[in-house]
Formats: sequence, C-alpha cells, structure tokens
Amino acid sequence: MENFVFYSPTEFVFGRDTERQVGALAVKHGASRVMIVYGGGSAVRSGLLDRVRLTLREAGLTFCELGGVQPNPTDAKVYEGIGLCRREGADLLLAVGGGSVIDTAKAIAAGVPYEGDFWDFYIGRAQVTRALKVAVVLTIPAAGSEGSGNTVITKSATLQKMSLRAPMYLRPVFSVMNPELTYTLPAFQTACGVCDMMIHIFERYFTNTTDVEVSDRMCEGVLTAILKEAYRVRQNPQDYGARANLMWAGMVAHNGTCGVGCEEDWASHFMEHEVSALYGVAHGAGLAVVVPAWMTFMAERHPEKVAQLGERVFGVPVQDDLQEMALGCVSRLKHFFRYMGLPVSFKELGVESPDIPLLVRKLHENKGPLVGNYVRLTPKDTEEIYRLAL
Amino acid sequence: MENFVFYSPTEFVFGRDTERQVGALAVKHGASRVMIVYGGGSAVRSGLLDRVRLTLREAGLTFCELGGVQPNPTDAKVYEGIGLCRREGADLLLAVGGGSVIDTAKAIAAGVPYEGDFWDFYIGRAQVTRALKVAVVLTIPAAGSEGSGNTVITKSATLQKMSLRAPMYLRPVFSVMNPELTYTLPAFQTACGVCDMMIHIFERYFTNTTDVEVSDRMCEGVLTAILKEAYRVRQNPQDYGARANLMWAGMVAHNGTCGVGCEEDWASHFMEHEVSALYGVAHGAGLAVVVPAWMTFMAERHPEKVAQLGERVFGVPVQDDLQEMALGCVSRLKHFFRYMGLPVSFKELGVESPDIPLLVRKLHENKGPLVGNYVRLTPKDTEEIYRLAL
Repeated sequence: MENFVFYSPTEFVFGRDTERQVGALAVKHGASRVMIVYGGGSAVRSGLLDRVRLTLREAGLTFCELGGVQPNPTDAKVYEGIGLCRREGADLLLAVGGGSVIDTAKAIAAGVPYEGDFWDFYIGRAQVTRALKVAVVLTIPAAGSEGSGNTVITKSATLQKMSLRAPMYLRPVFSVMNPELTYTLPAFQTACGVCDMMIHIFERYFTNTTDVEVSDRMCEGVLTAILKEAYRVRQNPQDYGARANLMWAGMVAHNGTCGVGCEEDWASHFMEHEVSALYGVAHGAGLAVVVPAWMTFMAERHPEKVAQLGERVFGVPVQDDLQEMALGCVSRLKHFFRYMGLPVSFKELGVESPDIPLLVRKLHENKGPLVGNYVRLTPKDTEEIYRLAL
Repeated sequence: MENFVFYSPTEFVFGRDTERQVGALAVKHGASRVMIVYGGGSAVRSGLLDRVRLTLREAGLTFCELGGVQPNPTDAKVYEGIGLCRREGADLLLAVGGGSVIDTAKAIAAGVPYEGDFWDFYIGRAQVTRALKVAVVLTIPAAGSEGSGNTVITKSATLQKMSLRAPMYLRPVFSVMNPELTYTLPAFQTACGVCDMMIHIFERYFTNTTDVEVSDRMCEGVLTAILKEAYRVRQNPQDYGARANLMWAGMVAHNGTCGVGCEEDWASHFMEHEVSALYGVAHGAGLAVVVPAWMTFMAERHPEKVAQLGERVFGVPVQDDLQEMALGCVSRLKHFFRYMGLPVSFKELGVESPDIPLLVRKLHENKGPLVGNYVRLTPKDTEEIYRLAL
C-alpha cells in the first residue's frame, strides 16, 4: 500500500425530500449570496429548481442563476459564469444537476478568485490555491463529482477535454442526494451513469500496487452491488431502494473511498475523453466502447487483475489460464453493458469510421507520450486498443 | 435504505513516517496550543512521544501533556484533563495512542467548554454543542475512534460504561496513521483490535433495513479483507502491507463508511460494556465471548443476515435451512477467534462464574428495557445470551 491522504469533508445529506434542506445547509456552510448553476430543462420542468429557490429564500439567502450548461461542458459557459459570479458577488456555487453542471460550477469556483485564465488550471499552467465554495443538489448518479475534487471541461476551439484534480479546494461543502430525483432519468442516461461509476472504480482497481486488500474488496463489493441494482432499476425505474443504492455507489466510486493507497490508472478515461471531445457522444457510452477493448488488450499483456475481477464480481470460473479468465470477464462485462442498452463498439456508438490516427495523436498530445499506469500505453498500444473497439 | 447524513471531515494522513507531519497538520487545522494525551509506557519507550514533541516544536507550537490514560478509561482522568486543559489554555487535544486515549481526549474536548459535569453528555442529560478540536496519532487499530465521533468512558464509582455519539463535534480534525507503529503490539492486543473492528461492522450489518446492498457488500468486503490480513499479521507481525490493511480497516469499520442508511444494532457492544466494566477485561476479548453467543441466539430467532454473512464472508455452503447456515457461521467465527488466540466463552475469558443477574440488571438500567435493534432484546433474552456464553 502506498502512503496516502484521504480527506473527504463533504457533508452528504441523503434521502427523500432532502432538497428542502438546501437553504439551511447553505447558511450552515457560511454562504451569504448563492449562484445557482443548472443545465437544461429537466430541473425546471420537474419543479426542482423552484423548490431549491424557495428553500434559499426561506433561509434568507439571495441568489443569481446560470442556466444552460450542456453535456460535455465547455469553456464558454465557464467564462460566462465567472463574469456573472464576479458581478453578482456570489460566494457559494450551488450546482443543481449532474456531472456537467457540477464540473462547470467547480471551474467557475476556481476561476473567480484567479486573475489569469481558468484554463491554466486544466493544462497544468497554474495550481488552484483558493476557490469559492461549491455545493450540489444531485440529479444524475454517474460522474461522482458530488463527492470528488475533480472537474472535466472541454475547450471548444481545440476540442481539448481536460480534467483538473484539486481535492483540497474543489470538494463540495455539501451534497444533497435524493434518489427520487432520478426516477425520470431516461434508461439510456441511467445506463451511461452506471457505466461511468463502474469505470471510476476500475481506474482505481487496476493497479500494480500490492497489499491493497481492503481497497480491492471494497471495489469488488460496490461493483457487485451496482450490477444488482442496475438490473433492478432496468426492471423498475421507480424502485427507490435500487435508485438509492446506485446514487450512493456513484459517490463512493469516485470520492476516494474505493482505491485508497493505490496507484490509479485512468487510461480508459483519457482514451474516452478524446472520443467524446471529437464525436460528442455521452461519456458513459464512450466508456462502454473503450473499456472492453482496453480490457481485451490487458488480457494478453497483464491479465492478473482482470481475471480477479472476473472471478470475484462476474462469476468467471477459476482456471489456471489467467488470460482465458480475463477474456471471460470481458465477455460478461460486454453482456452486461448490452443488457443495459449500451454500445460496446464504435459501430454501435454510431461512429462507423472513427479517425483513429487523430484520436491517438490528440490523446498523446494532451496526456503525454505514455498513458495509464496498470500498463503504460504507447501510441502503438492505444491505437491497438481503439482498433479493438471497432 | 433510510435517510442519512454522512459527514466525515477528518483528514487521514496514512503511511510510513507520517507522524513527522503532526506539527504542520496541527498548524494547518488552526491549533495554537496543544495538549498531548497519552497512555502508558509504549508511546514513551518507542520514542514516538519524543518525535511528536519534536514536530510540534518545529512547527512553533507550545504544548502541555496528560499521560497515564488506562485501558477502559475512567472519568477520573477526564476530570484531571479538563482541569489541566483549562489552566493551560490548550485549543487542540492531540491523542497519541489507541481508543482509550482518543476517547479520553474527546471527553475532555467536550468537557472543557461546558459549565456542568462532562458526564451529563454520557447519560443523556446534556447535548454537546461545542468542543475543542481533537487530533490523533494512532497506535492501536481497533476502536475506530480515529475516524468516529464516538467516545466510551467508564464512571468508576458506579461502574457505568457509557458511550457518547456527537459526530458534528467529536470527529478528529486529522488522524495520522503509520502502520509501522503497530509492529510491536502484542499478539493478543492485535487480536482484540481485530475483533473490535469486526464487531463494529457487525453492529451495522445486522439490520432490518432493506435495500442496503452497497452497504452490505462493503461490510462483507472489509470483513473478508480483515480475515485475510489478520492471518498474515499472525504469521508475521512486521508485515507492513497486512498491518496497513488492518489499520485502515479499523477506521472504515467505524467512521460510517460501512453501514450508511442502516438502522444499527449495538446490542453486542452494550452487552460487552457491562462485562468489561464489571470484570476489567479487554473490550475486544469481551466481544469475542459475547458475539458468538448473540449470534447463536439469532440463529434461532432471526437467522437471515447471519446466514448471509456465513455464506459471503465465511464460506458457509448455501442450504435451505437458514438456521443451519447461521450456526455454521457461528462455528467458523469461533474458529477464527480461537486461531487469533481470543477467548470465546466466559470461562476462557477467565470469568468462571459471571454474575449474570447483575450484568442483566445493569445492562437494562443503563441502556433501557430493550437493547439492540436487529432483535429488540428483553432482559430474558439478554440473560439467555449471557448464559450461551458460559
């Protein structure tokens, strides 16, 4: 096990009707003026936004609003938000939505007190040393941004999709999580979220760090629960218990609970970011295409942990040939993704002829000559993996 | 799943040599004058206390000291600490030790700013509304107090062993966890710690709350890891990886990570507290006696979750008769405890003829007419369980 710091000071308020507590929580966490950040129509149509406004007013707080955040959020909305937030003098950014909304709020939170271009943080040209407070009302369990200190933004002009990790500054001060708010998510979006949270665990689970038994077992336990609960939600989208388990799983998958003390991988996420940046697909769907290919590659090159996952989570029978076990794991993973209605190839993703040379070039331009840690992938390797996903 | 709040704002700094960071962490968390709380000789003999003093001095902090905290810590040391802390004007209590030391520090932290008797908090006569900051350098993985907002103190005059839960005020601001500090723990003390952390998970796992799959799987995963790592430590007490896994497991077993959204039980802990209050035995050893008896009782009355534990953690073969499965679980749990060198009966604990009527009377005087939630136990039930432990 490697040395680590685990510091997750977010207050998670979980359950039915918890959005009514938002105003009181904002006051408790020191807000005086709030900027609500939200996306498209569902938070408006469902009445959630009105309920949030009401609870802020009841708590005596004033607020301004930034709507219209899109999936795969871009820099333009961040600049707009930084300007608005400075003019309005807000001191807490309240994200009402999923990962795109939360990540935009985090980018604004880091950008407001910074004199330079917020994009500096995403390309490693500057470090976050202070930020406004961020809080969350979660509507989509997927990105885990409600518990993490991470944010992913795409720069439109260059199609660079980059992530920033600043856990000391960008973890939400509180996150309100009401599973009922997820009842109306379309099945495909639920499936994309399930895939995203599973891969957040994979990125930590696929490690060469030894002596991480507690971490391994927690990863496997949460994955096992996700498989079961995803099936139940597929059967009945309004199953409170199943929705609740998925919502909490999405948080623990990414706040660091799973994977302490491990060197993490992240090759799959980086490879997918190029796909969604270039083709505008849903991140979770892109992952469902990239990850089985990545795993197939690993079955030959470094099958150990894939075989272990297969045995402990997917019920692959134990055998001497680890490569066979690993391929069994890939097969069962694909089967599960298909059951969820996810694509498992570029073709099924609607990208008949991906420009693989361009994907590889941009990947290594953005993320360096070697990508990932479980196996450090060269451009030749990542090209092979993209081809395995055709 | 029940509604819940999960708020664990402790900064965990984990790994080799991390005690060198104590001074810097204390400054970061706003300390100006520290009171070090410690127990007997091992923190002195090992040089740990000297290293902690040095790092505080290097960080420019002044400090005073309260030593001599005993296992099953009592109110006398708390009163002494409250007086010293007030005279010295310390604003951060740094516990260097295990659960007894940390719990004493927490009691002092709550007591210093309170005008009445600190014991009021433990008997429900007053609520904690403020407290000094507590921080930890952990030397014994067992109680989980390094991550929890709980403390257990015994009032000597009445032999009342009572717990206080005040997570908003008594969670440590930081906990430094170096597994190397646990190399020299005697095998019996390591075993008692392993038992204590396992039972912290059991208290959450044995619930009637439905739809807690993520929680169940995390509990089972951490328990599975503990069994493996305890075995490794038994084989080689200086196995860093095994010590590290046990140390982290002890934290997650009790900070709330396992068991969110569940109604918890706590009958076993309450029943054990009477045993250690009356006979002065180690808490972990007392649990190893009480819990198999509690579980045997449950095999007849409410076997479902015991059977599930047996199957998923102890490898009990699945069969139609849940009671048989549950008894299989008890048998394997006892086998494990015996392997670890723990007693599994009053006789093996060295209490040949426990005064069961007195234990039952004090238990229900202190904890109410019904104890626990998995099955709400009457005095007749708890008497039967104590008898099963003879």
